[in-house]
Amino acid sequence: MAIRLFETAEFEARVARVKERMEKAGIELLLVASPANQFWLTGYDGWSFYTPQMVILAADEAQPIWFGRAMDAVGARMTVFMEEANILPYPDSHVASAEHHPMKRLAEIVEERGWAGKRIGVEMDDTYYTARWHAILTEKLPDAEFADAFLLVNWARMVKSEQEIQYLKEAGTIAAAAMQAAIDKAEVGVRQCDVMAEVYRVTTAGTEAFGGTFTCKPPNAMVGEVCAAPHLSWSDAPLIDGDLFYIELGGCRHRYHAPLSRCIVLGKPDDRMDFVANVIAEGLDAVLDTVKPGLVCEELAAAWHAVIERHGIEKDSRIGYPVGIGYPPTWGELTCSLRAGDRTVLQEGMTFHCIPAIWMESYGLTISESFVVTGKGAETFSDFPRKLFEK
Amino acid sequence: MAIRLFETAEFEARVARVKERMEKAGIELLLVASPANQFWLTGYDGWSFYTPQMVILAADEAQPIWFGRAMDAVGARMTVFMEEANILPYPDSHVASAEHHPMKRLAEIVEERGWAGKRIGVEMDDTYYTARWHAILTEKLPDAEFADAFLLVNWARMVKSEQEIQYLKEAGTIAAAAMQAAIDKAEVGVRQCDVMAEVYRVTTAGTEAFGGTFTCKPPNAMVGEVCAAPHLSWSDAPLIDGDLFYIELGGCRHRYHAPLSRCIVLGKPDDRMDFVANVIAEGLDAVLDTVKPGLVCEELAAAWHAVIERHGIEKDSRIGYPVGIGYPPTWGELTCSLRAGDRTVLQEGMTFHCIPAIWMESYGLTISESFVVTGKGAETFSDFPRKLFEK
Repeated sequence: MAIRLFETAEFEARVARVKERMEKAGIELLLVASPANQFWLTGYDGWSFYTPQMVILAADEAQPIWFGRAMDAVGARMTVFMEEANILPYPDSHVASAEHHPMKRLAEIVEERGWAGKRIGVEMDDTYYTARWHAILTEKLPDAEFADAFLLVNWARMVKSEQEIQYLKEAGTIAAAAMQAAIDKAEVGVRQCDVMAEVYRVTTAGTEAFGGTFTCKPPNAMVGEVCAAPHLSWSDAPLIDGDLFYIELGGCRHRYHAPLSRCIVLGKPDDRMDFVANVIAEGLDAVLDTVKPGLVCEELAAAWHAVIERHGIEKDSRIGYPVGIGYPPTWGELTCSLRAGDRTVLQEGMTFHCIPAIWMESYGLTISESFVVTGKGAETFSDFPRKLFEK
Repeated sequence: MAIRLFETAEFEARVARVKERMEKAGIELLLVASPANQFWLTGYDGWSFYTPQMVILAADEAQPIWFGRAMDAVGARMTVFMEEANILPYPDSHVASAEHHPMKRLAEIVEERGWAGKRIGVEMDDTYYTARWHAILTEKLPDAEFADAFLLVNWARMVKSEQEIQYLKEAGTIAAAAMQAAIDKAEVGVRQCDVMAEVYRVTTAGTEAFGGTFTCKPPNAMVGEVCAAPHLSWSDAPLIDGDLFYIELGGCRHRYHAPLSRCIVLGKPDDRMDFVANVIAEGLDAVLDTVKPGLVCEELAAAWHAVIERHGIEKDSRIGYPVGIGYPPTWGELTCSLRAGDRTVLQEGMTFHCIPAIWMESYGLTISESFVVTGKGAETFSDFPRKLFEK
């Protein structure tokens, strides 16, 4: 059986885009450790990246090579666009073994194919490219010249195809449904975990038209005093009057994530909370209204800052990042940022999560949207009221 | 507010255990990149490890140091057992920046504290210790001697405390409830994603007595032909008569995971499937009956092999691994394995996931249990029938 999320022509176009970047960087062989980049380049999507796996792209070969655990070659055959010859499994004896390491086998393959003297690009700061992998490869391939190719593929991923945007729209529809489920469930006396259970139920079920699935990270969702800590989590305590429930969640479709954030207050917000929420909504609207191809990222940040400064609020961290394929630990693409100083030019088909959160002494507030840059401006993936919700 | 999952004395005992191992390995300063190890050593649990963070343990300092993003120091203050002076934030300008890198700041701290000439242990093959981190640290600290301390803390984590076992039992109760929800929901005509939505709902809600939460990885759950690929995923197709639904899921309580696996067949299993499922159940029972302190891991694997060989089945990969704290990409502790050749001695308080799956041409079957080694043998965390379920 074959699982094909994209046409072969789309994969070929992706490979061509990466090869162009390789040529500019003088890289003849690219070793791709990032599971998100591996998925984008080959179609392989499995939760097997807890053991070493790599995608190899040689300037002088038409198709990438999938290199992974023998057990997972079955899944590779079902999902990748390449020929059987480009699926290279290593035996199970290399898993969690002190003597054998899959990178030793990979170095042998590089040697066997005549690439040992090439300029090899590796993703030096990617989460999945460990210090040990690099130590083995550089030791076993002493004639190669290693170059840092961190984010090379990520940058190539930025402009999305129609099919990718379609998946992101479906993900945005799921995100909105999940947020609505949280708002419906949140009430004084209901446990925080029971609200989140509804979020998970809907995120996984999706809609009647298309199913959901797991996201690459949990929602950032905190309640009450914990709202002051951006990356802690909900608990099983019941909601109490006056609680603020901060929820940044994501819908996911075929690994494409559309994040969406809202806050829910149990009861009435105080004046300050109400004021800040309105400023965030106004600022987010201003950013979305500003979006058009040809602008640079910092111009979107400036639109936000103009609004909050007019209201006497300061915030200096970034307000967004490109979004798309997500594998743990993040759905961010790690390339540019919506912040002062970032001169990346917006192009049609680029996709972002704009999340202008404001963190105060004892809590944080946010309203966020994911969107695609179109000729007519920003098109959001979710259709959901931009306000602080009261329950 | 303070979130304390363990007594301070327990953290101090953990630190002492690690320092003993450091001394044996001749390591004077340990840099801990693994979020699971960081949580175990300090109590810090936040989804902030997508930006660099480290726990520093010096042989000559009583408490560990938490080093992370300024924004996350708020969450560190709420969760760690250490004093305020041992929380060292770096500014947001170091996030996703080409010039600044948090590891440069970390090297400065090591320098400032007089550790630059020490023997420094780093977790070379941990997912979160990238090649770039290591390159920066070795470049900025040329007088230090770097040693591979991969798994040093993981080994120290193996014997669990009473409180840890309590959390694992709660996780096992949640896992059983989630599995029951899947079995209840699975029916011909129901979409695969709707079955998984029930798993997620229950995993997150937990029980009436205690809440659930997110797990560090999705269930390995596949249906029909995809069952031949161990790490692919379910889809939104409706279940059809004869489908096999393979589910390896986990319950989670305060980051402690208890995995549990069962398979569901829609309709009647054929003779072969029925036979193999019975062999797996018998083999798993044999392993659990064998468990006692003082045996070595490979003796558990041998108990399994004796059963399946008697039935004419061969399987050479490992049948289990230690389990406990989980952060992506795995809930495995990465130390020993239940397989031939592993001479790790079982001790009271060690916890394992025994997952004897058998992969055939077109599908895989498994029945698994998580358990703690006690003086009386294996005590499983879930109480759930060990069989192939028919719906």
